Amino acid sequence: MAKKMQTFKIAGSPVYVGPSALEELRYNLTTLFVNKESVFILADENTDKHCYPLLAGMVPQMERAYKIVIPAGEDHKTLATCEQVWNQMAVAGANRKSLLINLGGGMVSDLGGFAASVFHRGMEYVNIPTTLMSMIDASLGGKTGVDLYSLKNQIGLFAPPAAVYVWSGFLSTLPHRQLLSGYAEMIKHALIADADFWKRLIRIPMAVVSSWDDQILEAIRIKAEIVNADPLEQGSRRLLNFGHTLGHAFETWSLRNDKSPLTHGEAIAMGMICEAYISYRIAGLSHSDRDELVRQILLNFNHYKIPTTAIDELVEITNYDKKNQKGRTMLTLLRNIGHAVEGQQCEPAIIRESLFRFTDFGRLTE
Amino acid sequence: MAKKMQTFKIAGSPVYVGPSALEELRYNLTTLFVNKESVFILADENTDKHCYPLLAGMVPQMERAYKIVIPAGEDHKTLATCEQVWNQMAVAGANRKSLLINLGGGMVSDLGGFAASVFHRGMEYVNIPTTLMSMIDASLGGKTGVDLYSLKNQIGLFAPPAAVYVWSGFLSTLPHRQLLSGYAEMIKHALIADADFWKRLIRIPMAVVSSWDDQILEAIRIKAEIVNADPLEQGSRRLLNFGHTLGHAFETWSLRNDKSPLTHGEAIAMGMICEAYISYRIAGLSHSDRDELVRQILLNFNHYKIPTTAIDELVEITNYDKKNQKGRTMLTLLRNIGHAVEGQQCEPAIIRESLFRFTDFGRLTE
Repeated sequence: MAKKMQTFKIAGSPVYVGPSALEELRYNLTTLFVNKESVFILADENTDKHCYPLLAGMVPQMERAYKIVIPAGEDHKTLATCEQVWNQMAVAGANRKSLLINLGGGMVSDLGGFAASVFHRGMEYVNIPTTLMSMIDASLGGKTGVDLYSLKNQIGLFAPPAAVYVWSGFLSTLPHRQLLSGYAEMIKHALIADADFWKRLIRIPMAVVSSWDDQILEAIRIKAEIVNADPLEQGSRRLLNFGHTLGHAFETWSLRNDKSPLTHGEAIAMGMICEAYISYRIAGLSHSDRDELVRQILLNFNHYKIPTTAIDELVEITNYDKKNQKGRTMLTLLRNIGHAVEGQQCEPAIIRESLFRFTDFGRLTE
Repeated sequence: MAKKMQTFKIAGSPVYVGPSALEELRYNLTTLFVNKESVFILADENTDKHCYPLLAGMVPQMERAYKIVIPAGEDHKTLATCEQVWNQMAVAGANRKSLLINLGGGMVSDLGGFAASVFHRGMEYVNIPTTLMSMIDASLGGKTGVDLYSLKNQIGLFAPPAAVYVWSGFLSTLPHRQLLSGYAEMIKHALIADADFWKRLIRIPMAVVSSWDDQILEAIRIKAEIVNADPLEQGSRRLLNFGHTLGHAFETWSLRNDKSPLTHGEAIAMGMICEAYISYRIAGLSHSDRDELVRQILLNFNHYKIPTTAIDELVEITNYDKKNQKGRTMLTLLRNIGHAVEGQQCEPAIIRESLFRFTDFGRLTE
């Protein structure tokens, strides 16, 4: 990457990307945010341990911030965790002129963004994504929310962050499995919008990538174009949901049933396999594009073994998807690699069929 | 009232007021809201019993609405009650294209407005206020929220209703004490903005008013003017907070300590007595205006007896007020009857003094 920092605007929020992104935060704290009455930083147990020291080393104002640490993991993205955050903020005297800094992956920015946006009817927050997934997706675009029981993101709102600071240095703290989770969203960005990016991505096996800076910039550019065309997700922003209807179902099912649940990205990767099959069945995706996609995913992700008895429950979960309309399941599907279409109605029978076939897809790479 | 219906616009929401307001709802359900995928109605145990039958008699579409009933009372304005509402909505298949109709007082519209606005990142809601207080205040202007533990309205957002339908017929279902609660906000509207309305109001003892239609229109007009000048409460909307800093403290204290807690309006009435004293001390309110105000309130409201040991706790509660800035308590005070000023900094010592004097104010009417 030639430049030290590039700036995007996504749903009205400035997004600073590059080696100098945290210098911009340091500067903003003495300018844009200088009148904040108090600054809070939200981390989970992992980012508190691994990322907070890096941040504090580069942004000295962190010393005066009030730190709130929540348990790590998607299964803590709940109203109960929000209540802990609100309680600590209330006790520490936070008000609508305070600032919350979310340091973490999508779980932290989703929950922290929601917690801030409804505290005293709205305090500002910024995101510092620490995972690949949140750098290119979750921290951008203003979607916030928590899960209701095991249903994903049922409670939340559109509330754009005051700024986002993307510094890839945090990726060195990330376990391989978390990096992989972000790679799934990166694949998705390429699949829905940019066949050339897809070709460049699959040329290098994910495991040997040494710097993610260029791919992050490309993925953020795609996210920015799609979100800015439709910030409130009334139409074309739904393109970003490819893989997510079945993906959320896998994620929900796994949270309910697995001791070590799927990451968001692993679930989305499996969701893309199913939705590639559905795209082939009802949206005109070619056999060869479908197989290229499935092969590429299974090169990097372990095939997720589900019992066939899980299929009913998975179909049932898709009935609660937020994108459904008038009781019908609406998917984003692929016409070709690099070209997605949203608002595709899909019968439960086809979803069921994709899940039955999914249990076989492992063979494609054999 | 000459007209069958008058229309206001408050914070972007249409507000229909008058004997024909519910006919407008009936019409809107076949036009504006005809594409809603499902309609939910939120009532509390009281409005379900006393108001729902009246509504269903006038708006036949209510038969097809999915009814959710929550416990009545401010102490149920909590996240736990929200979770019950969200759970029922999720099970019944609500989504962001559903509509929620809030039938009740401020507790129902505050909680229901919040619950709807963060369900699936925002479904629309409308308010049908059934109490005098909510007709002229709580249901209007888009403030939503619930309490956090016993701290008032800590969690919520600005989310204007899609419409509000004000029909005074519901007042016939209201216990006198609830009517009185609304009368406190009506007094407040007059005190902060309209000395003539104040004079007309106090001319008739509250207990002998037979129709509230004219006073409702006047009070809504004042609320509309103030909210529309500053919908997000960045300045002048705070005028509406006269009596509310001490009032919320009384309300919180009473919820914690009384078996039959103060209503919101009773608490605000007591708050106005204290804040009239503070206005006299630091904002130039004359001795005679102060006494006229206190006398008028104590003509209609029982003086609230607090032990002097409660004073520390009451002062402490004001430290959590959402209007505070940089740790300072900021009040809305009166210069004269009909003229309020917001953003008045007040030392805790003066607040304490007002509370000590408050315990004596009963004498003024003796």
